[in-house]
Formats: sequence, structure tokens, C-alpha cells
Amino acid sequence: MELKVYVDRLSQPSRAIVIFCKVNKIDFEEVGIELLKGQHLTPEFKEINPMGKVPAIVVDGKFKLFESHAILIFLASAFPGVADHWYPADLYRRAEIHSILDWHHSNLRHGSTGFIQNTLLAPLFGRSLNPQAAAEAEKVLSSSLSKIEALWLKESGQFLLGSSQPSIADLCLVCEIMQLEFADETDRNRILGPHKKIQQWIEDTKSATKPHFDEVHQTLFAAKVKLQMQRK
Amino acid sequence: MELKVYVDRLSQPSRAIVIFCKVNKIDFEEVGIELLKGQHLTPEFKEINPMGKVPAIVVDGKFKLFESHAILIFLASAFPGVADHWYPADLYRRAEIHSILDWHHSNLRHGSTGFIQNTLLAPLFGRSLNPQAAAEAEKVLSSSLSKIEALWLKESGQFLLGSSQPSIADLCLVCEIMQLEFADETDRNRILGPHKKIQQWIEDTKSATKPHFDEVHQTLFAAKVKLQMQRK
Repeated sequence: MELKVYVDRLSQPSRAIVIFCKVNKIDFEEVGIELLKGQHLTPEFKEINPMGKVPAIVVDGKFKLFESHAILIFLASAFPGVADHWYPADLYRRAEIHSILDWHHSNLRHGSTGFIQNTLLAPLFGRSLNPQAAAEAEKVLSSSLSKIEALWLKESGQFLLGSSQPSIADLCLVCEIMQLEFADETDRNRILGPHKKIQQWIEDTKSATKPHFDEVHQTLFAAKVKLQMQRK
Repeated sequence: MELKVYVDRLSQPSRAIVIFCKVNKIDFEEVGIELLKGQHLTPEFKEINPMGKVPAIVVDGKFKLFESHAILIFLASAFPGVADHWYPADLYRRAEIHSILDWHHSNLRHGSTGFIQNTLLAPLFGRSLNPQAAAEAEKVLSSSLSKIEALWLKESGQFLLGSSQPSIADLCLVCEIMQLEFADETDRNRILGPHKKIQQWIEDTKSATKPHFDEVHQTLFAAKVKLQMQRK
């Protein structure tokens, strides 16, 4: 199976897919689509994903797929070498992972992107910052972090649902939270500080996917330094 | 398998699940949770779904699941009598259905609920109407309808992805669009009028799931009449 992966490592779902492929030794070609240069909006890229978003994949030159959760489920199902813990075959376990991933859209992701866009990134895409929207997004984000701790990190295992090994839901949600690396130190500490279990879970996910997690996040760390210098 | 389904038929994902169970002759007990009475926020219901939202299910008195897409996938997988077209076993077909369902969260659903909440329902939940938010939601909604027509209703079949029979994605998205029944006639005509394929698709989905589709939507139609009288 020939796999092309269209991503920008500044995008959290893009990183989740690149890390997943690397950890699972899936052979793929990474095609960089730079969001800050508007490469996701070109006619060429819209032939790959008509929604004009990353990530997207093309399999064997003809099957095109977008939406990161759908992509991860497809990769976990189509590549036989992927261990069961990433996307369990058990219907009940699988259902709980679907539930977390669905919840993610309108909760953690909604809060995280709203906060980062409205405190930092909007001007890079020609929009203005919106402090009120940022404050509302922070509420959604903090509430989401509390819910993850109370519902899914409460058991003995290191990962969501008390598992001892990560699933695609761990990878998606942790990559989302890593987007807060863009935020100011004070903002990040205010938001993440109260959530010790979340902090430990991030470390455990890094550790379970090393060295790929840190390597794939280098782009984010570099962009953060550049952004800080521009703002000074 | 003993199945309890916690729903309010005024909620679009609740209706999708009730219709799915009825069409597929899945034996279930429907437990009404009235959103307008705040029954979703009681401690008793939060034992079922800690997120305080409908729909939710309980299987065999112990397995609890929320998020409508996850529930539909579970039901389609766990009940052997469900025909393949609802949630195809083929990995590629299944991936495309996951992709549409994921897209739904931040697009069609985001637009539809934003519009209806901010033009009509917000006061019933103690919030005020927000015309600017309604206008922004309408843009997302109209753009989503255009995308569905251009990408997924373009082929010869009556249903999404050119299929001749509906999938869980058809059911979820059509139930979402039916929420516009709450809207004023002029609003609904302005939004749905330009989308002839969408209108035909709604009729085809009703027809493929009759008589359950209309029967389950009676609650919506009745609530609409009541709401109109209150506003007059």
C-alpha cells in the first residue's frame, strides 16, 4: 500500500498522524502543506482535500481521505502491523474510543483552537485577535481538561480508559494539548497548572512514542521561538 | 442484549438513534430525558452520561456510552441484524463514512445548532438570542449544505457517497437538517431553497426509513407549533 500523508507539523492532527505512522513503522511519504503560506487553499491541494484542510492522505494514488480521526482509524485497520491497543478490536473498548474522539471535536479541540487562534495566531491568517472569544474558549478548554481527568484518567493505567498502552485517542488529545506550547508561559501555566494528571499523561504519551513524539514536535517548538521573537 | 436509550426527540442526534433502532428492529427501551425541563442536568442522569447530554445508552445495565456517532457505530456493529449499508464492513467505505461523521461536528452541526439556538431556542435555556452569532452560523450552515451537495451527493445513488441505500451518516446529517423545522418559514426557505439535491435527499431518507422517520419527528413538529404560538 502506497501512502502519501499531506500535513503541516504545526497542525495538531497532522502531528498525531505522522507520529502514529512512525511509531507503527508504516511506510509513508510526508508531503508538507504550509498553512502559513496558504498552501492548503491552492487548487492543487483541493484536488486532494476539497475542504482545504490538513491532514489528508492518498492511498495507492487514488483513495483520498480527510479528517484526522477517520484517517487514524483507517490506518490502524488497514495496516496489519498496528498493535491492538491503538484501536482495539473489542466492540465495547472501540466504542469508548469513538466516544472520546467524537467528544474531542466540540470540547477539547474547540477550546484549544479557539484559545490559541484568538490569543496568538489569528493575525497570521489575516484575522484579528478576539479577547472575549479567547476567554470563552479558555473556559471550554479548562472544563475539558477537568473532564478528561475525572472520567478517563481516573483508573490505574497511565492512559485513557485505564489502559496501560496508548490508543489513537491518547495521541489525538495529547497532540491537541501540546498546541498550548504556542501560548505564553503564564497562560499555559494558568491553564495546565491545576491538571497534574494531564501533565503526567502528556509525559507518558511522549515516553510511549519516543523518539518520534519529540522529533515531530520540533517544528512547533521552533515556530514558537520565531513567534515570540516577532512579538518582541 | 438489553438496551436502554436515553433521548429527547427534540434533539437531532436522539432522533437519529431512535429511528435507527426502529428501522433495524433493535429491541430497546426509550427513556425520555426532557431537555426543556433540565432533566439532562440531574445527578441521576449524570450517572448515565457525566457530560449531561442526550443521547446516551446503557447496555445490559452496565455499559454506558454517549456521543451519537459512537452509539450508532456500536449498535450497527453489536446487533447482527443490521444491514451492511448502514455501516459498511469494507474499510475504504467505512473510512469515508467516518470522515463525513467527523466533518459533521465542526461544520453542518456547528452551523445548524448555532443558527437555531441564536434565532430561537436560547431563551428557553436562559440565554439571550445573538443575531451576529446566528448570521455567522448561517454562513457555516449554508456552506456545509453546498459541500454535501458538491462532494457527497454528486453521484448517481440517492444517498451520500453515491450509495443506493442509507448509512448512519445519511441518518445523522438528515436529522440535523430537520432541526431547521424549528426555524421561521422565511429563514428555512432562504437556507434550504437553493439546495434541491439536499431537499431530494431528505425525502429519500424519509422514504427509506418510513414510517419511523415521520413518527419520530412528530415531537419536533408539535414543539414547533407550540413555539410559534408562544411567540405570537
